[in-house]
Amino acid sequence: MSRLTLAQANTIIAAALERGAEIGLKPLSVAVLDPGGHLIAFQRQDGASTLRPEIATAKAAGALGLGVSSRTIGEMAADRPSFIGSLGPISPKGVLPAAGGVIIVDGEGLPIGAVGITGDTSDNDEDCALAGIAAAGLTPQE
Amino acid sequence: MSRLTLAQANTIIAAALERGAEIGLKPLSVAVLDPGGHLIAFQRQDGASTLRPEIATAKAAGALGLGVSSRTIGEMAADRPSFIGSLGPISPKGVLPAAGGVIIVDGEGLPIGAVGITGDTSDNDEDCALAGIAAAGLTPQE
Amino acid sequence: MSRLTLAQANTIIAAALERGAEIGLKPLSVAVLDPGGHLIAFQRQDGASTLRPEIATAKAAGALGLGVSSRTIGEMAADRPSFIGSLGPISPKGVLPAAGGVIIVDGEGLPIGAVGITGDTSDNDEDCALAGIAAAGLTPQE
Amino acid sequence: MSRLTLAQANTIIAAALERGAEIGLKPLSVAVLDPGGHLIAFQRQDGASTLRPEIATAKAAGALGLGVSSRTIGEMAADRPSFIGSLGPISPKGVLPAAGGVIIVDGEGLPIGAVGITGDTSDNDEDCALAGIAAAGLTPQE
Repeated sequence: MSRLTLAQANTIIAAALERGAEIGLKPLSVAVLDPGGHLIAFQRQDGASTLRPEIATAKAAGALGLGVSSRTIGEMAADRPSFIGSLGPISPKGVLPAAGGVIIVDGEGLPIGAVGITGDTSDNDEDCALAGIAAAGLTPQE
Repeated sequence: MSRLTLAQANTIIAAALERGAEIGLKPLSVAVLDPGGHLIAFQRQDGASTLRPEIATAKAAGALGLGVSSRTIGEMAADRPSFIGSLGPISPKGVLPAAGGVIIVDGEGLPIGAVGITGDTSDNDEDCALAGIAAAGLTPQE
Repeated sequence: MSRLTLAQANTIIAAALERGAEIGLKPLSVAVLDPGGHLIAFQRQDGASTLRPEIATAKAAGALGLGVSSRTIGEMAADRPSFIGSLGPISPKGVLPAAGGVIIVDGEGLPIGAVGITGDTSDNDEDCALAGIAAAGLTPQE
Repeated sequence: MSRLTLAQANTIIAAALERGAEIGLKPLSVAVLDPGGHLIAFQRQDGASTLRPEIATAKAAGALGLGVSSRTIGEMAADRPSFIGSLGPISPKGVLPAAGGVIIVDGEGLPIGAVGITGDTSDNDEDCALAGIAAAGLTPQE
């Protein structure tokens, strides 16, 4: 298994949005990327603002670009804001330092894609990303 | 009605992919944008290459940007290649001069979104876009 | 096997440069990318001009982006110049319509990377790319 | 001597990677640029994430761009974050404020190229850059 299928990506998105509805979150936007950072599937709920596709994508793309979750990138940014800030201009899809971007790995720990969610608090965004990954029977990078 | 809902966008994509399967097309990528050119939903079928998200989006975004289908933009490009070529760098999501990008209008003829499809011939891509729009009970711009 | 290793990439480059020396070509630049379009290894021979890294990369990245060799993209550009021209602004690493960019596939025909070469005629550039791929015991996409 | 040769660049990379293996670092990515900031050679070790080519290049390119090491740029960023942050968007390959980017000078102190390394802590990245430069019999800018 080297990359997520479209069916898996759709399952992740449906489950993430279901989780968001269940816990009463604001409108969410969910991007699922292949391991090279290219979009497989995306959905933006009604009422979500216009930059959400780029934010959701940047959470996932930044995670794949650096090899860690966007939560960890957020922690790095707290310590070294200029370092993380310098990555935006050199990353085609940006690097977003806030939770909600999670790498998905195969049995050997290699990336097979990533999910990025935005719309509510970043903790809630990440909660939905993890719910989506679990619903698809897949494994987030630890 | 000022923009497509996510439910409508998902219906368009599902019907477009069903149409592609029915007539035996190559793997398709389908983007649905709101009237401001911002992504509502996207799906890329397994086997489609990595630039397809950008191409599908550029077909729809270019159509909205100029107010005509990407088929018409292709005809404009045949007559005035430098003019159409000059738009790419100033359009955040590009302008793609080939059929497959179709504006969706409301009862007064105002844009409520657009569909962009890539993967097979541009005629077939457009055929699937129109099938998707019809399946959602919506109207393409004439 | 889901992507080329660094050892394979280095073998491809060494063999491509050896082939260039053997048939007396001008200084070459060789890029090897992973299937997501990200650089694994690159070498630019002494005397090659400054934009060569970007050209070699764009040959390989464009091939992966569209799923065909940069030779085929060159043929598409002859028929539909505005279409191919429109892809540059939406492709982070460009799309270069000239031979020398070749996708490498695994046993199932799925991309595991790509090579891009520039410096001599595009036919000679491609000849060296194929020599490099063969030397590494790998298979170019047909 | 006005710029590094490809042979020197390859020696630098091989020695830097050897140093990384010797002290047990994470997978490294090493870029060697000519004094104009254009890539001569690059290698990314297996397991390194996808944005590493851009980060390694930005460390070296930013150093050449400002005429000081990326370590010094990091110190400047601590004092004047907005100034350094403003350079990213106007530098084609970015400016990265963290150690690991080192200028290489000739006998008169003029730049003949630069090395940029990323993958481990920035101190370790720089350690490997200096080891690579020493192995090639060259001199880092003080």
